[in-house]
Amino acid sequence: MDMRELVRKARTTRRFDESKPVTGQELRLLVDAARVSSCGGNSQPLRYRLVSGPAECQKVFPLVAWAASIPDWSGPGAGERPTGYIAICSEGTPGLDTGIAAQTIQLCAAAQGIGACMMGAIQREPIKQALNIDEKYNLMLLIALGRPAETIVIDEVAAGADLTYYRTADGVHHVPKLGLDDVLIG
Amino acid sequence: MDMRELVRKARTTRRFDESKPVTGQELRLLVDAARVSSCGGNSQPLRYRLVSGPAECQKVFPLVAWAASIPDWSGPGAGERPTGYIAICSEGTPGLDTGIAAQTIQLCAAAQGIGACMMGAIQREPIKQALNIDEKYNLMLLIALGRPAETIVIDEVAAGADLTYYRTADGVHHVPKLGLDDVLIG
Repeated sequence: MDMRELVRKARTTRRFDESKPVTGQELRLLVDAARVSSCGGNSQPLRYRLVSGPAECQKVFPLVAWAASIPDWSGPGAGERPTGYIAICSEGTPGLDTGIAAQTIQLCAAAQGIGACMMGAIQREPIKQALNIDEKYNLMLLIALGRPAETIVIDEVAAGADLTYYRTADGVHHVPKLGLDDVLIG
Repeated sequence: MDMRELVRKARTTRRFDESKPVTGQELRLLVDAARVSSCGGNSQPLRYRLVSGPAECQKVFPLVAWAASIPDWSGPGAGERPTGYIAICSEGTPGLDTGIAAQTIQLCAAAQGIGACMMGAIQREPIKQALNIDEKYNLMLLIALGRPAETIVIDEVAAGADLTYYRTADGVHHVPKLGLDDVLIG
Protein backbone atom coordinates (compact mmCIF):
# COMPACT_ATOMS: atom_id res chain seq x y z
CA MET A 1 0.00 0.00 0.00
CA ASP A 2 1.07 3.53 -0.71
CA MET A 3 2.29 5.20 2.48
CA ARG A 4 0.09 8.27 2.14
CA GLU A 5 -2.92 5.99 1.68
CA LEU A 6 -1.87 4.04 4.79
CA VAL A 7 -1.61 7.23 6.83
CA ARG A 8 -5.18 8.13 5.85
CA LYS A 9 -6.33 4.61 6.72
CA ALA A 10 -4.65 4.66 10.17
CA ARG A 11 -7.52 6.40 11.91
CA THR A 12 -8.22 6.48 15.62
CA THR A 13 -10.50 3.48 16.09
CA ARG A 14 -12.88 3.06 19.04
CA ARG A 15 -15.10 0.09 18.10
CA PHE A 16 -13.56 -3.30 17.44
CA ASP A 17 -14.54 -6.86 16.58
CA GLU A 18 -13.84 -8.75 19.79
CA SER A 19 -14.43 -12.06 18.03
CA LYS A 20 -11.09 -11.58 16.23
CA PRO A 21 -8.62 -10.66 18.98
CA VAL A 22 -5.13 -9.38 18.34
CA THR A 23 -2.51 -11.82 19.55
CA GLY A 24 0.41 -11.33 21.90
CA GLN A 25 2.74 -12.03 19.00
CA GLU A 26 1.12 -9.26 16.93
CA LEU A 27 1.68 -6.84 19.82
CA ARG A 28 5.32 -7.94 20.08
CA LEU A 29 5.89 -7.21 16.40
CA LEU A 30 4.43 -3.73 16.79
CA VAL A 31 6.85 -2.96 19.60
CA ASP A 32 9.66 -4.51 17.59
CA ALA A 33 9.05 -1.79 15.00
CA ALA A 34 8.71 0.99 17.57
CA ARG A 35 11.97 0.10 19.29
CA VAL A 36 14.07 0.77 16.15
CA SER A 37 12.42 4.11 15.35
CA SER A 38 14.32 7.34 15.72
CA CYS A 39 14.49 8.88 19.19
CA GLY A 40 16.25 11.85 20.71
CA GLY A 41 20.00 11.19 21.00
CA ASN A 42 19.24 7.49 20.44
CA SER A 43 18.74 7.25 24.20
CA GLN A 44 15.82 4.78 23.90
CA PRO A 45 13.95 5.88 27.03
CA LEU A 46 10.72 4.01 26.31
CA ARG A 47 9.56 0.70 27.75
CA TYR A 48 6.47 -1.22 26.71
CA ARG A 49 3.95 -3.29 28.66
CA LEU A 50 1.84 -5.56 26.46
CA VAL A 51 -1.75 -6.37 27.42
CA SER A 52 -3.51 -9.22 25.68
CA GLY A 53 -6.12 -11.84 26.52
CA PRO A 54 -9.58 -11.16 27.98
CA ALA A 55 -8.54 -11.18 31.64
CA GLU A 56 -5.92 -8.43 31.34
CA CYS A 57 -7.98 -6.40 28.86
CA GLN A 58 -10.87 -6.42 31.33
CA LYS A 59 -8.57 -4.97 33.99
CA VAL A 60 -7.64 -2.01 31.81
CA PHE A 61 -10.97 -1.22 30.15
CA PRO A 62 -12.72 0.43 33.16
CA LEU A 63 -9.71 2.72 33.65
CA VAL A 64 -9.87 4.62 30.35
CA ALA A 65 -12.22 7.31 29.00
CA TRP A 66 -13.55 7.19 25.44
CA ALA A 67 -14.27 9.91 22.90
CA ALA A 68 -14.69 13.01 25.05
CA SER A 69 -16.26 14.74 22.06
CA ILE A 70 -19.15 12.26 21.80
CA PRO A 71 -20.78 12.93 25.19
CA ASP A 72 -23.75 10.58 24.77
CA TRP A 73 -21.51 7.55 24.16
CA SER A 74 -19.69 6.04 27.10
CA GLY A 75 -17.42 3.80 25.05
CA PRO A 76 -17.46 0.53 23.16
CA GLY A 77 -19.99 -2.04 24.38
CA ALA A 78 -19.55 -5.76 24.98
CA GLY A 79 -18.28 -7.41 21.81
CA GLU A 80 -16.70 -4.24 20.41
CA ARG A 81 -13.99 -3.55 22.97
CA PRO A 82 -10.21 -3.53 22.40
CA THR A 83 -8.55 -6.93 22.44
CA GLY A 84 -5.07 -5.65 23.23
CA TYR A 85 -3.23 -2.65 24.62
CA ILE A 86 0.33 -1.37 24.56
CA ALA A 87 1.29 0.82 27.51
CA ILE A 88 4.23 3.12 26.69
CA CYS A 89 6.24 3.91 29.81
CA SER A 90 9.36 5.88 30.64
CA GLU A 91 11.37 6.94 33.65
CA GLY A 92 11.29 10.47 32.19
CA THR A 93 8.58 12.26 30.20
CA PRO A 94 9.82 12.12 26.59
CA GLY A 95 6.75 13.39 24.76
CA LEU A 96 8.33 13.60 21.33
CA ASP A 97 9.79 10.08 21.50
CA THR A 98 6.44 8.77 22.70
CA GLY A 99 4.68 10.30 19.70
CA ILE A 100 7.24 8.83 17.30
CA ALA A 101 6.82 5.36 18.80
CA ALA A 102 3.03 5.61 19.00
CA GLN A 103 2.68 6.59 15.35
CA THR A 104 5.04 3.77 14.34
CA ILE A 105 2.74 1.38 16.20
CA GLN A 106 -0.44 2.86 14.72
CA LEU A 107 0.87 2.72 11.14
CA CYS A 108 2.30 -0.80 11.46
CA ALA A 109 -1.01 -1.89 13.00
CA ALA A 110 -3.02 -0.33 10.16
CA ALA A 111 -0.83 -2.13 7.62
CA GLN A 112 -1.98 -5.41 9.23
CA GLY A 113 -5.65 -4.45 9.47
CA ILE A 114 -5.44 -3.62 13.17
CA GLY A 115 -7.04 -0.43 14.45
CA ALA A 116 -5.51 1.70 17.22
CA CYS A 117 -6.59 4.40 19.62
CA MET A 118 -3.93 6.47 21.39
CA MET A 119 -5.45 7.22 24.78
CA GLY A 120 -4.41 10.08 27.00
CA ALA A 121 -7.52 10.34 29.20
CA ILE A 122 -6.58 7.38 31.37
CA GLN A 123 -6.29 6.62 35.06
CA ARG A 124 -2.52 6.34 35.09
CA GLU A 125 -1.79 5.12 38.60
CA PRO A 126 -4.63 2.56 38.73
CA ILE A 127 -3.54 1.20 35.34
CA LYS A 128 0.05 0.92 36.55
CA GLN A 129 -1.17 -0.97 39.61
CA ALA A 130 -3.45 -3.26 37.59
CA LEU A 131 -0.56 -4.16 35.28
CA ASN A 132 2.16 -4.33 37.95
CA ILE A 133 4.16 -1.57 36.26
CA ASP A 134 7.05 -0.47 38.46
CA GLU A 135 6.38 2.87 40.13
CA LYS A 136 9.62 4.27 38.67
CA TYR A 137 7.88 4.49 35.29
CA ASN A 138 5.53 7.19 34.05
CA LEU A 139 2.69 5.83 31.94
CA MET A 140 3.12 8.10 28.92
CA LEU A 141 0.38 6.73 26.69
CA LEU A 142 -1.92 3.75 26.34
CA ILE A 143 -2.70 2.43 22.87
CA ALA A 144 -5.87 0.34 22.53
CA LEU A 145 -5.87 -2.15 19.66
CA GLY A 146 -8.23 -4.51 17.88
CA ARG A 147 -9.76 -5.35 14.50
CA PRO A 148 -11.78 -2.31 13.43
CA ALA A 149 -15.57 -2.56 13.46
CA GLU A 150 -16.49 0.97 12.45
CA THR A 151 -16.34 3.23 9.42
CA ILE A 152 -14.29 6.39 9.84
CA VAL A 153 -14.05 9.15 7.26
CA ILE A 154 -11.94 12.29 6.97
CA ASP A 155 -13.89 15.44 6.08
CA GLU A 156 -11.76 18.31 4.84
CA VAL A 157 -12.96 21.55 6.41
CA ALA A 158 -12.13 25.22 6.03
CA ALA A 159 -9.96 27.18 8.44
CA GLY A 160 -12.00 28.30 11.42
CA ALA A 161 -14.46 25.39 11.16
CA ASP A 162 -15.37 23.26 14.16
CA LEU A 163 -12.76 20.47 14.44
CA THR A 164 -14.80 18.32 16.82
CA TYR A 165 -15.17 14.76 15.58
CA TYR A 166 -18.69 13.34 15.55
CA ARG A 167 -20.77 10.33 14.65
CA THR A 168 -23.76 10.39 12.31
CA ALA A 169 -26.97 8.37 12.72
CA ASP A 170 -25.64 5.75 10.30
CA GLY A 171 -22.81 5.02 12.77
CA VAL A 172 -20.09 6.57 10.62
CA HIS A 173 -17.40 8.42 12.57
CA HIS A 174 -16.37 11.74 11.00
CA VAL A 175 -13.00 13.44 11.54
CA PRO A 176 -12.79 17.04 10.30
CA LYS A 177 -9.28 17.92 9.10
CA LEU A 178 -7.88 21.26 7.99
CA GLY A 179 -6.72 21.46 4.39
CA LEU A 180 -3.08 21.50 3.42
CA ASP A 181 -2.91 25.23 2.72
CA ASP A 182 -4.45 25.95 6.12
CA VAL A 183 -1.65 24.21 8.01
CA LEU A 184 1.19 25.74 5.98
CA ILE A 185 2.63 29.04 7.18
CA GLY A 186 5.12 31.55 5.79
CA MET B 1 7.48 -2.39 0.98
CA ASP B 2 6.63 -4.11 4.22
CA MET B 3 5.96 -1.52 6.94
CA ARG B 4 8.39 -3.04 9.43
CA GLU B 5 11.10 -3.01 6.77
CA LEU B 6 10.27 0.64 6.02
CA VAL B 7 10.56 1.56 9.72
CA ARG B 8 14.05 0.02 9.80
CA LYS B 9 14.97 1.88 6.62
CA ALA B 10 13.76 5.25 7.95
CA ARG B 11 16.98 6.06 9.76
CA THR B 12 18.14 9.47 10.91
CA THR B 13 20.18 10.68 7.93
CA ARG B 14 22.87 13.37 8.16
CA ARG B 15 24.67 13.25 4.78
CA PHE B 16 22.75 13.89 1.58
CA ASP B 17 23.28 14.14 -2.16
CA GLU B 18 22.83 17.85 -2.84
CA SER B 19 22.88 17.21 -6.58
CA LYS B 20 19.41 15.65 -6.26
CA PRO B 21 17.41 18.16 -4.23
CA VAL B 22 13.99 17.47 -2.77
CA THR B 23 11.33 19.64 -4.36
CA GLY B 24 8.80 21.96 -2.78
CA GLN B 25 6.05 19.67 -4.05
CA GLU B 26 7.65 16.68 -2.29
CA LEU B 27 7.68 18.65 0.95
CA ARG B 28 4.02 19.60 0.46
CA LEU B 29 3.06 15.95 0.06
CA LEU B 30 4.87 15.04 3.29
CA VAL B 31 2.90 17.66 5.21
CA ASP B 32 -0.27 16.53 3.47
CA ALA B 33 0.26 13.15 5.14
CA ALA B 34 1.18 14.64 8.52
CA ARG B 35 -1.92 16.85 8.65
CA VAL B 36 -4.32 13.88 8.56
CA SER B 37 -2.49 11.88 11.24
CA SER B 38 -4.02 11.34 14.66
CA CYS B 39 -3.59 14.13 17.20
CA GLY B 40 -4.87 14.75 20.69
CA GLY B 41 -8.58 15.58 20.65
CA ASN B 42 -8.27 16.19 16.88
CA SER B 43 -7.30 19.77 17.78
CA GLN B 44 -4.68 20.02 14.97
CA PRO B 45 -2.35 22.43 16.76
CA LEU B 46 0.58 22.06 14.35
CA ARG B 47 1.60 24.38 11.54
CA TYR B 48 4.36 23.74 9.02
CA ARG B 49 6.89 26.04 7.34
CA LEU B 50 8.50 24.50 4.25
CA VAL B 51 12.08 25.35 3.35
CA SER B 52 13.35 24.48 -0.12
CA GLY B 53 15.77 25.89 -2.64
CA PRO B 54 19.45 26.71 -2.00
CA ALA B 55 18.89 30.25 -0.75
CA GLU B 56 16.50 29.33 2.07
CA CYS B 57 18.41 26.15 2.96
CA GLN B 58 21.57 28.21 3.36
CA LYS B 59 19.81 30.46 5.83
CA VAL B 60 18.87 27.54 8.06
CA PHE B 61 22.01 25.40 7.86
CA PRO B 62 24.26 27.52 10.14
CA LEU B 63 21.58 27.53 12.82
CA VAL B 64 21.49 23.79 13.56
CA ALA B 65 23.89 21.43 15.37
CA TRP B 66 24.72 17.99 13.98
CA ALA B 67 25.36 14.65 15.64
CA ALA B 68 26.34 15.62 19.18
CA SER B 69 27.68 12.10 19.67
CA ILE B 70 30.26 12.40 16.88
CA PRO B 71 32.36 15.21 18.36
CA ASP B 72 35.02 15.32 15.64
CA TRP B 73 32.47 15.92 12.90
CA SER B 74 30.89 19.35 12.63
CA GLY B 75 28.20 18.36 10.17
CA PRO B 76 27.70 17.66 6.48
CA GLY B 77 30.12 19.41 4.12
CA ALA B 78 29.40 21.23 0.87
CA GLY B 79 27.59 18.90 -1.51
CA GLU B 80 26.16 16.70 1.24
CA ARG B 81 23.86 19.11 3.03
CA PRO B 82 20.06 18.92 3.36
CA THR B 83 18.10 20.21 0.38
CA GLY B 84 14.90 20.87 2.28
CA TYR B 85 13.53 21.37 5.77
CA ILE B 86 10.13 21.21 7.41
CA ALA B 87 9.75 23.37 10.52
CA ILE B 88 6.96 22.12 12.80
CA CYS B 89 5.44 24.98 14.78
CA SER B 90 2.66 25.41 17.29
CA GLU B 91 1.17 28.08 19.50
CA GLY B 92 1.37 25.55 22.34
CA THR B 93 3.95 22.84 23.05
CA PRO B 94 2.26 19.60 21.95
CA GLY B 95 5.18 17.18 22.18
CA LEU B 96 3.19 14.03 21.52
CA ASP B 97 1.44 15.47 18.45
CA THR B 98 4.78 16.73 17.15
CA GLY B 99 6.29 13.25 17.43
CA ILE B 100 3.32 11.69 15.63
CA ALA B 101 3.60 14.20 12.78
CA ALA B 102 7.40 13.95 12.58
CA GLN B 103 7.36 10.17 12.32
CA THR B 104 4.64 10.35 9.67
CA ILE B 105 6.92 12.66 7.69
CA GLN B 106 10.03 10.51 8.21
CA LEU B 107 8.25 7.30 7.13
CA CYS B 108 6.56 8.88 4.10
CA ALA B 109 9.92 10.38 3.14
CA ALA B 110 11.68 7.02 3.46
CA ALA B 111 9.04 5.42 1.24
CA GLN B 112 10.08 7.88 -1.49
CA GLY B 113 13.82 7.47 -0.98
CA ILE B 114 14.16 10.70 0.99
CA GLY B 115 16.21 10.72 4.20
CA ALA B 116 15.24 12.77 7.25
CA CYS B 117 16.87 14.06 10.42
CA MET B 118 14.66 15.28 13.26
CA MET B 119 16.65 18.10 14.83
CA GLY B 120 16.15 19.35 18.35
CA ALA B 121 19.54 21.06 18.86
CA ILE B 122 18.62 24.14 16.89
CA GLN B 123 18.74 27.89 17.37
CA ARG B 124 15.00 28.34 17.59
CA GLU B 125 14.60 32.10 17.66
CA PRO B 126 17.20 32.82 14.92
CA ILE B 127 15.56 30.17 12.71
CA LYS B 128 12.14 31.71 13.28
CA GLN B 129 13.56 35.12 12.31
CA ALA B 130 15.34 33.74 9.23
CA LEU B 131 12.12 32.13 8.03
CA ASN B 132 9.76 34.95 9.07
CA ILE B 133 7.83 32.65 11.38
CA ASP B 134 5.36 34.62 13.48
CA GLU B 135 6.52 35.03 17.05
CA LYS B 136 3.28 33.51 18.33
CA TYR B 137 4.58 30.10 17.26
CA ASN B 138 6.99 27.83 19.10
CA LEU B 139 9.41 26.03 16.81
CA MET B 140 8.80 22.50 18.05
CA LEU B 141 11.09 20.59 15.70
CA LEU B 142 13.05 21.02 12.50
CA ILE B 143 13.25 18.11 10.08
CA ALA B 144 16.15 18.18 7.60
CA LEU B 145 15.55 16.29 4.35
CA GLY B 146 17.45 15.16 1.28
CA ARG B 147 18.44 12.13 -0.77
CA PRO B 148 20.57 9.94 1.50
CA ALA B 149 24.29 9.71 0.79
CA GLU B 150 25.40 7.53 3.68
CA THR B 151 25.06 3.97 4.87
CA ILE B 152 23.37 3.50 8.24
CA VAL B 153 23.07 0.20 10.06
CA ILE B 154 21.24 -0.90 13.19
CA ASP B 155 23.34 -2.93 15.62
CA GLU B 156 21.35 -4.85 18.20
CA VAL B 157 23.03 -4.54 21.59
CA ALA B 158 22.50 -6.02 25.03
CA ALA B 159 20.85 -4.20 27.92
CA GLY B 160 23.35 -1.93 29.63
CA ALA B 161 25.47 -1.46 26.50
CA ASP B 162 26.56 1.97 25.32
CA LEU B 163 23.76 3.37 23.12
CA THR B 164 25.88 6.13 21.58
CA TYR B 165 25.76 6.09 17.79
CA TYR B 166 29.11 6.20 16.01
CA ARG B 167 30.75 6.16 12.61
CA THR B 168 33.40 3.65 11.56
CA ALA B 169 36.44 4.40 9.36
CA ASP B 170 34.58 3.11 6.31
CA GLY B 171 32.04 5.92 6.77
CA VAL B 172 29.24 3.63 7.92
CA HIS B 173 27.01 5.12 10.59
CA HIS B 174 26.09 2.66 13.36
CA VAL B 175 22.98 2.92 15.56
CA PRO B 176 22.95 0.60 18.60
CA LYS B 177 19.42 -0.49 19.50
CA LEU B 178 18.20 -2.50 22.48
CA GLY B 179 16.61 -5.85 21.68
CA LEU B 180 12.89 -6.44 21.89
CA ASP B 181 12.98 -8.29 25.20
CA ASP B 182 14.99 -5.47 26.74
CA VAL B 183 12.30 -2.87 26.06
CA LEU B 184 9.39 -5.01 27.23
CA ILE B 185 8.42 -4.84 30.90
CA GLY B 186 6.04 -6.72 33.16
